[in-house]
Amino acid sequence: MLESTDYKVADLSLAEAGRHQIRLAEREMPGLMALREEYADAAPLAGARIAGSLHMTVQTAVLIETLTALGAEVRWASCNIFSTQDEAAAAVVVGQGTPAAPSGVPVFAWKGESLEEYWWAADRIFDFADGPTLILDDGGDATMYVLEGAAAEAAGRVPTAGEDDPDERRAFLAQIQTAMTASPGRFTTLAGKIRGVSEETTTGVNRLYRLAEAGRLPFPAINVNDSVTKSKFDNRYGIRHSLPDGLNRATDVLIGGKVAVVVGYGDVGKGAAEALRGQGARVIVTEIDPICALQAAMDGYQVALLPEVAETADIVITTTGNTRVVDVDVLQRLKPGAIVGNVGHFDDEIDLAGLRRLPGVSATEIKPQVHEWTIPVPAEAGLERETTQILVLSEGRLLNLGNATGHPSFVMSASFSNQVLAQIELWTHGEDYTIGVHRLGKDLDELVARLHLPALGARLSELTKDQAEYIGVDVAGPYKPEHYRY
Amino acid sequence: MLESTDYKVADLSLAEAGRHQIRLAEREMPGLMALREEYADAAPLAGARIAGSLHMTVQTAVLIETLTALGAEVRWASCNIFSTQDEAAAAVVVGQGTPAAPSGVPVFAWKGESLEEYWWAADRIFDFADGPTLILDDGGDATMYVLEGAAAEAAGRVPTAGEDDPDERRAFLAQIQTAMTASPGRFTTLAGKIRGVSEETTTGVNRLYRLAEAGRLPFPAINVNDSVTKSKFDNRYGIRHSLPDGLNRATDVLIGGKVAVVVGYGDVGKGAAEALRGQGARVIVTEIDPICALQAAMDGYQVALLPEVAETADIVITTTGNTRVVDVDVLQRLKPGAIVGNVGHFDDEIDLAGLRRLPGVSATEIKPQVHEWTIPVPAEAGLERETTQILVLSEGRLLNLGNATGHPSFVMSASFSNQVLAQIELWTHGEDYTIGVHRLGKDLDELVARLHLPALGARLSELTKDQAEYIGVDVAGPYKPEHYRY
Amino acid sequence: MLESTDYKVADLSLAEAGRHQIRLAEREMPGLMALREEYADAAPLAGARIAGSLHMTVQTAVLIETLTALGAEVRWASCNIFSTQDEAAAAVVVGQGTPAAPSGVPVFAWKGESLEEYWWAADRIFDFADGPTLILDDGGDATMYVLEGAAAEAAGRVPTAGEDDPDERRAFLAQIQTAMTASPGRFTTLAGKIRGVSEETTTGVNRLYRLAEAGRLPFPAINVNDSVTKSKFDNRYGIRHSLPDGLNRATDVLIGGKVAVVVGYGDVGKGAAEALRGQGARVIVTEIDPICALQAAMDGYQVALLPEVAETADIVITTTGNTRVVDVDVLQRLKPGAIVGNVGHFDDEIDLAGLRRLPGVSATEIKPQVHEWTIPVPAEAGLERETTQILVLSEGRLLNLGNATGHPSFVMSASFSNQVLAQIELWTHGEDYTIGVHRLGKDLDELVARLHLPALGARLSELTKDQAEYIGVDVAGPYKPEHYRY
Amino acid sequence: MLESTDYKVADLSLAEAGRHQIRLAEREMPGLMALREEYADAAPLAGARIAGSLHMTVQTAVLIETLTALGAEVRWASCNIFSTQDEAAAAVVVGQGTPAAPSGVPVFAWKGESLEEYWWAADRIFDFADGPTLILDDGGDATMYVLEGAAAEAAGRVPTAGEDDPDERRAFLAQIQTAMTASPGRFTTLAGKIRGVSEETTTGVNRLYRLAEAGRLPFPAINVNDSVTKSKFDNRYGIRHSLPDGLNRATDVLIGGKVAVVVGYGDVGKGAAEALRGQGARVIVTEIDPICALQAAMDGYQVALLPEVAETADIVITTTGNTRVVDVDVLQRLKPGAIVGNVGHFDDEIDLAGLRRLPGVSATEIKPQVHEWTIPVPAEAGLERETTQILVLSEGRLLNLGNATGHPSFVMSASFSNQVLAQIELWTHGEDYTIGVHRLGKDLDELVARLHLPALGARLSELTKDQAEYIGVDVAGPYKPEHYRY
Repeated sequence: MLESTDYKVADLSLAEAGRHQIRLAEREMPGLMALREEYADAAPLAGARIAGSLHMTVQTAVLIETLTALGAEVRWASCNIFSTQDEAAAAVVVGQGTPAAPSGVPVFAWKGESLEEYWWAADRIFDFADGPTLILDDGGDATMYVLEGAAAEAAGRVPTAGEDDPDERRAFLAQIQTAMTASPGRFTTLAGKIRGVSEETTTGVNRLYRLAEAGRLPFPAINVNDSVTKSKFDNRYGIRHSLPDGLNRATDVLIGGKVAVVVGYGDVGKGAAEALRGQGARVIVTEIDPICALQAAMDGYQVALLPEVAETADIVITTTGNTRVVDVDVLQRLKPGAIVGNVGHFDDEIDLAGLRRLPGVSATEIKPQVHEWTIPVPAEAGLERETTQILVLSEGRLLNLGNATGHPSFVMSASFSNQVLAQIELWTHGEDYTIGVHRLGKDLDELVARLHLPALGARLSELTKDQAEYIGVDVAGPYKPEHYRY
Repeated sequence: MLESTDYKVADLSLAEAGRHQIRLAEREMPGLMALREEYADAAPLAGARIAGSLHMTVQTAVLIETLTALGAEVRWASCNIFSTQDEAAAAVVVGQGTPAAPSGVPVFAWKGESLEEYWWAADRIFDFADGPTLILDDGGDATMYVLEGAAAEAAGRVPTAGEDDPDERRAFLAQIQTAMTASPGRFTTLAGKIRGVSEETTTGVNRLYRLAEAGRLPFPAINVNDSVTKSKFDNRYGIRHSLPDGLNRATDVLIGGKVAVVVGYGDVGKGAAEALRGQGARVIVTEIDPICALQAAMDGYQVALLPEVAETADIVITTTGNTRVVDVDVLQRLKPGAIVGNVGHFDDEIDLAGLRRLPGVSATEIKPQVHEWTIPVPAEAGLERETTQILVLSEGRLLNLGNATGHPSFVMSASFSNQVLAQIELWTHGEDYTIGVHRLGKDLDELVARLHLPALGARLSELTKDQAEYIGVDVAGPYKPEHYRY
Repeated sequence: MLESTDYKVADLSLAEAGRHQIRLAEREMPGLMALREEYADAAPLAGARIAGSLHMTVQTAVLIETLTALGAEVRWASCNIFSTQDEAAAAVVVGQGTPAAPSGVPVFAWKGESLEEYWWAADRIFDFADGPTLILDDGGDATMYVLEGAAAEAAGRVPTAGEDDPDERRAFLAQIQTAMTASPGRFTTLAGKIRGVSEETTTGVNRLYRLAEAGRLPFPAINVNDSVTKSKFDNRYGIRHSLPDGLNRATDVLIGGKVAVVVGYGDVGKGAAEALRGQGARVIVTEIDPICALQAAMDGYQVALLPEVAETADIVITTTGNTRVVDVDVLQRLKPGAIVGNVGHFDDEIDLAGLRRLPGVSATEIKPQVHEWTIPVPAEAGLERETTQILVLSEGRLLNLGNATGHPSFVMSASFSNQVLAQIELWTHGEDYTIGVHRLGKDLDELVARLHLPALGARLSELTKDQAEYIGVDVAGPYKPEHYRY
Repeated sequence: MLESTDYKVADLSLAEAGRHQIRLAEREMPGLMALREEYADAAPLAGARIAGSLHMTVQTAVLIETLTALGAEVRWASCNIFSTQDEAAAAVVVGQGTPAAPSGVPVFAWKGESLEEYWWAADRIFDFADGPTLILDDGGDATMYVLEGAAAEAAGRVPTAGEDDPDERRAFLAQIQTAMTASPGRFTTLAGKIRGVSEETTTGVNRLYRLAEAGRLPFPAINVNDSVTKSKFDNRYGIRHSLPDGLNRATDVLIGGKVAVVVGYGDVGKGAAEALRGQGARVIVTEIDPICALQAAMDGYQVALLPEVAETADIVITTTGNTRVVDVDVLQRLKPGAIVGNVGHFDDEIDLAGLRRLPGVSATEIKPQVHEWTIPVPAEAGLERETTQILVLSEGRLLNLGNATGHPSFVMSASFSNQVLAQIELWTHGEDYTIGVHRLGKDLDELVARLHLPALGARLSELTKDQAEYIGVDVAGPYKPEHYRY
């Protein structure tokens, strides 16, 4: 049984509803279930204490319970203030117990946290009695929290937030200060105990690469994002599913016939464009990378500059992981009723911070996570209107999480199977990994794919021995050189 | 101000939320808004008293308020027990008034009516002081209610429900009995006052044609369903939007990679198949019409027999408007986790009545409108399991309405623009229409299309005089012969 | 054995090659082969003498030999000066005989006829000893030839060609004059013997409707074009296949990534747009019909005005059956290398006649049916160039026939099965058809579809008796009301 | 002027026709033309003597003339016995001269070489007076010829062909023997002079990697195939274009509605599947790599085992680069009329060698590169027929080259721009490359993409300095980490 204070979720009475959904999700997560079956006896994560920071959804519940089934102790927070599904959080906390006597995993997550609450929750996941041994991270917040905390301890002070720093940064630094004050040396101790981190997203991976380059990464990291069965599945097929889902739940606006601009044509952008076209939208792509731009053109999309097409856009979706790719100037050019949303990563892809500073701007909540902004249009824009009204989804945060329920179970099963394998690698063979950022071997990547084929009725052909020799691979794989792009 | 008893909705305090959504929907319904603008002064529906029976959604609210803007008095019920959006119903009732002093339109609809309540509400829409003059119908329930009531009065008795009659029929007959008893001659009077009906759906139109053939239709009917801008837009593009929306909200299951069987390849089936393929499903079509079957094959879909593909299906969607197209035998063959839903018309497309009679069957509500059925699998099915568990959406009723919010505003704008034009025709030129079922002229059909192009940024080319002569049409249209299929 | 003068084809020694192709085509024309099988004994066309005017391709060879297998005598010409496949013509003439002793059907057709030769050949198809009894027509040329000839005989003179009349019209009138002079009363006699015509195309059907309206049609006509299994198959799926085929054989230019403008979004335009998108082009549609324009928008295409998008177009395809839809002004705006082609009907969809009159214009043959035109660009066009060079395919005639081999066998099997059924109807039940233009019954339309399903592995479901009653149709069909649009 | 014996092509009088096509192709090859413009003065290939072995098509002509424009001397052969376009070969030989006095590049290639002629031509490309300095290779034949020749010289003897060796191998060894005998030490000298090779295809690259691993590669090699702008463009978008083109020219069979099996879902398979689906086929994929198999499933294709779906296939296309992926057993199961073709690499993807050995088998040429094989069906296959007749395209060699004209100019422009950059790298910075197989830098890959965007009207966005810093790249690129998969 859990201590009654060792978790914080919205409402434990939602646990039964959450358990129903978890049970259904398990059918859609054949990779995780196969790993439970295969490794149940061996318990390869026995002894591991995993601090997890990843959207606290139904799918993550299946991940958490797979980790514990493999022997780990786990504590969890969400990596986004809006992404928690409260019934899933409740079910994970209750576990085999009851709402009155929960016996599951300590979770610190609820839908609609404040920034202060978010970072408080991030701190809680490290509160293992003997300290954490591994981080399972999404976006890098948990890792950065420990490392910047340790850096502050080394420097003897927490950096002061700059004038232009976003609120997130301020809350982040404030929490470090709080924790340092409450428990001097906390971060240095934590950083010393952690044997490795597995990271879910492009953004988080980029942060890790920069830490590693700067010599500031003290433990090995596994880049789960760049497993093929993650980046080419979750990013692409997940968004293909959850982008229209989020748009629909938020606005009920017909996508067919509309002009939709997809900002960025990486894996996420490719999935977004495919989904919108599949619903009959006319999709325009903007890109900065000439190779991706050429792909977009060859896939039949117009490739244009955002300021030039803003006036005709009905829907603008950011997919980049970069900053202010939809700036205030573009927002002002949008026509009344235009919908703006982000499925990239951070909430500054759409420059709402800049928009908020614009004199005369105002926002009305239409329903939760859907705001109608009224924006003054400057005369020099050459448009006929004095204001425009646009719909902004999830306050610029990930709309597929904020307005819908995130990626569906099946793609998350692929991503999370990689996470589980990464945690096993770090725990059982961590010493084989140098400090730096690593990818999982292609054999494990192919294993994850293999675990998901039967559920789709897909039959895999086998190489003959002759054929395997002919192309110089083993009959059992791996089948492709490292640089193969799929 | 409305009498406090002359409406029945879930909660008037939802009116403000409903008004927000209505305001957003108005932007997406350019056809209705253009008709309001064009006809506001002329008030062509002045004097008309319209009894409306159509899903009480946000979009229908815009329709209702367009009818009243054109001068009509209106009373409204939903044509489906699950399809009402309570906030829309509240907003329509409140109108320009307040929840405390509503001054809108009498609506009798809420989400989750019982069958008895449904038919009670159907009766209420005729309660104009001077009686109704027109019916605006969806599925034919309002029309059948009046005509079967009048027939019962003529026969001196209400028919007795047969042993095999569905519960719907029983409730329907019971309500006729109740009304006849309370107010003898009511139905005969109503039928005498009504000058015409405009009907929204294939199913309703088929009922009208059969009534007309049997000489039992006492007034002209306009078949709105078969306007091109209805049947080829609402049926096809509406479903393309709302089918995945309903599936997603109900189950969050990834559609990509799944085997989806679409039963029927009419306009609804075509939209369903396109939506599912657009999400990466492998779509299999079943058909009874060889022409539609050949279309499905030429569009790249496998055309198969349902019993033979049931075992591999992950998703089964009915689109036919026919009865028991998914029978108990097929339901038993589905694999655990299979999802079954209906976007056709009546709830007996999936034979849930038959399923309920099967010994050993049980159903659990996962969440509203989503039930997991556990079904015994007979040994002779030759499968390896003793039971299967399938998810049934909206209890076999229209899942796009029950699990999502129905067709989006834009397609409904096209459908409802046809409805408004049909009501104007019946009211202002009713005498030009013989008793029987008519379609709107192609000029009006083209007008509806024309009203929707600017919102999509579509630019319409114009024939030169020479070109118009060359193909023998007027420069202003109509452009196609009656038999043209689009 | 044929008289050695009673045919005119390019080269009888091509017959063996043609026979190979006919044999392969028969596998792809299951409808025609099934009709041969079903009707071989009954010989329903015994006694009929059919004058045929339809592209003399391999597929038409299978049609011709189906007509003779059913008992008819047949004479044939092509309905386009470029569309004959010489080896098919040779094989049909040779028949069961040898090039030295041909014993097949008299054909008067070769690739690359002059206009004079074309109309001479059209005259030959009526040279049955006892006169023709039926016309099988494509575009209406054979029918118009007889009727305008008879009108000239009635008027006592052939109309004089106007200054602006195209060369086609001049050659047409000259041939009437020649035939009238050679054999006075010829046309009146022919018109009197003909019991009916079956017409293949929209254009021909439009001519028939106008004749009928003007009271100038002396026999019943069957509109084969508007059978669903023709207009929605041949027009749409045939063009989907043969448009990219023609473009590729003509130019080898990558379609992917290009901007392709499709002029017209009827069935042909829909097939063209789908094909080009399927190859990765960005497709823009122009339309004059608001309903078709709205369909294009809902299918995700930009709908624009041709003059405004001409400058960005890489490929312009006309599909309208109208005149000068690509005018000289548009041709001048095209960028160097732009490709222009027609899959509509007549060769004046692209105003090449107007272009030829433009001072300074010139054309070079790149290879047969591919010409590079150098066109002066007026200063007022506001472009930076003084000339442009564009590729015009098949001299503005049907590029899918001129640059490729026309529609593939399978779609032609559907179209031609309708033709065969139409000829049988006219011959065996001609008296049931009033003078005017008729469509084939839906039962025959469904029969044609049914005959083509097994070859695609498509399995047709069957209605139960209950279901048939429920929707008010016969178990065996027809299944849809006449106005159903598919 | 060329010596009259220093070339061998089909017919120099085709040069004018070839020049026309080259001129048109130049418009479609913006990358090569931009490189000519940029480097014309610098002549970075001055002094280089390039032995080229690559399909001698119109596009290759533009490549060859780009290499010479940059200063190189070039000699050329085709890398496939059927792939030469004779008019292109003639035009390259004639160059600025005339057929009587050619002054272009020595080419040794014609359509329909024998295997002996093929290897004779391969030998000719090394006949520079001072020997070659670079190889530009496709499939590795030119490289292997030199290296195996040198190995034979080192061993003192040419290996004896094994009993099971294909005819290609026999002809290869025979030509080595001939050359060694005629000019002892020839190969050793050649190998010593060559400073590097750039290789076009997966197959050739695999051979190079194996040579390098075995320590048998004596010079650096640049793997052009794995530039993104090659493997993800030529392989995918090229095949998307040229597969249906080849099928159409070969058979004129409607692709729509057919069951098409694509063997392999790498880049080529992805393009093939997309093309066939875009034409309305129902596509089934077979795969041995679980990751690619999962991609196919997620893209909506059935993933099956070839023997199990062979009986229902209308079209089977191999895309693997592996051996005997369609074996005799599968060929026997195909239904009459099935079409089999290869767009992978070598001609043994379809086991025609095995088929030829089957008693009772026979083949008829329908037209060049299209053969109808009659194959006995063993009773144990459980089919109802005793023989089947299938169409085999291009005798199992690349059908897009044999039955059509290969990849279109635009994609080849991307591939060949990489080739030119690779040759420049090897010639100007060859000393920076170790012996081994290298890829071009991402900056060059992005450059190639950048050169092709303007021709498609694609507008490239630019990172702000802030954004570039935010994601840690230079504003000018490269934008992605090496492992990025696009």
